[in-house]
Amino acid sequence: MDHIKAIAFDLYGTLFDVHSVASRCDEQFPGRGQEISNVWRQKQLEYTWLRSLMNRYIPFEHVTEEALRYTSRHLGLALDDETCRSLSDAYLHLQPFAEVPDALRELRQRGLKLAILSNGSPHSIGAVVGHAGLRNSFDHLLSVDPVRVYKPDNRAYELAEHAFGLNRTEILFVSSNAWDATGARYFGFPTAWVNRGGKVFDEMGQKPDWEVNGLDALVKLLGAAG
Amino acid sequence: MDHIKAIAFDLYGTLFDVHSVASRCDEQFPGRGQEISNVWRQKQLEYTWLRSLMNRYIPFEHVTEEALRYTSRHLGLALDDETCRSLSDAYLHLQPFAEVPDALRELRQRGLKLAILSNGSPHSIGAVVGHAGLRNSFDHLLSVDPVRVYKPDNRAYELAEHAFGLNRTEILFVSSNAWDATGARYFGFPTAWVNRGGKVFDEMGQKPDWEVNGLDALVKLLGAAG
Repeated sequence: MDHIKAIAFDLYGTLFDVHSVASRCDEQFPGRGQEISNVWRQKQLEYTWLRSLMNRYIPFEHVTEEALRYTSRHLGLALDDETCRSLSDAYLHLQPFAEVPDALRELRQRGLKLAILSNGSPHSIGAVVGHAGLRNSFDHLLSVDPVRVYKPDNRAYELAEHAFGLNRTEILFVSSNAWDATGARYFGFPTAWVNRGGKVFDEMGQKPDWEVNGLDALVKLLGAAG
Repeated sequence: MDHIKAIAFDLYGTLFDVHSVASRCDEQFPGRGQEISNVWRQKQLEYTWLRSLMNRYIPFEHVTEEALRYTSRHLGLALDDETCRSLSDAYLHLQPFAEVPDALRELRQRGLKLAILSNGSPHSIGAVVGHAGLRNSFDHLLSVDPVRVYKPDNRAYELAEHAFGLNRTEILFVSSNAWDATGARYFGFPTAWVNRGGKVFDEMGQKPDWEVNGLDALVKLLGAAG
């Protein structure tokens, strides 16, 4: 990976655990937290894709609330507006995966430029990263909001290329989301898939260049190749 | 509904039961048919949306095969190329829902123009409709293939407007898929959602104009309003 000068990370599910909202859901609906979190996340993703296709972009926080409203009706759970907002706010306080802070520090020490490229709004990204004390780990926090379309549309990936001022072949894209890694690969980024849960990759005509089980493994991989 | 002059139907899940492939899957993988069918259908949909967003259209039959390949790996089932093709061919032999043939006949007798507007390729649509003996029920069989993008992109819905030569407000769009009914509604079609299974509608800022539990109920609704 000698040619890699910068890394763009996906946020949700890659650096931060989206299912850390499950405990908040479980306080509100005892015993249902994980189930709610699973349906909620799936619908949140679907709504970003569908709204992009329909050319009906709204910011990620609103998509998140709409997906939670669907989830509560689908699971037959009563949800008032206040609880909906309060649970959705849990997406602003996600926990980073355990190895992430150390791994980011090591990558920066090697002189790599780092960015987040996320479907989240600037406010969401800032809040999540700020609460985790990781603001200084990144050169750029990039939201798709200026282009008003969600990943895996090419216009989203272009934001990282422009921010770094590098050719896409010099930017490693890192995501736990197989569909996101697929989109990045089609765009032309060298791509690493973070597969923490022994999942299988998607079948859309692309494979990641590297597969790792965490960011610590990514640091080792970059060290070995560098 | 006096102003309705034509009806465009979604095919998969609306006129024809996508889960009629479960019995073929069950012959191949005993006891797993319904589970395979559920994952397969979900991934098939996701791949149509994601490929559209990535501008990487491939025909629906190929998406169907890719989705089945993912499904078999996800569920840990061995799937050779021949079995993959053979099971995917089950999507060419779907069963119509029981009330569909009579309902189509009644709608035509009232002078309405009828079309299918489907993500399926021309070959897939023709095969499904032909095997069910319903070819003569439709004035148009419309595939998204010429525009190389899947629903709910507006370019797909425009195909029905052009084929009928009518204003979109004169064309009733009928789908069991809430995301499809949402896209059609944003496009400007009056829209009926066929909800056979007591599902909840999606939360993407639209509601269907009508909700029915089958095509027989739609016939009654049109009769009552006409």
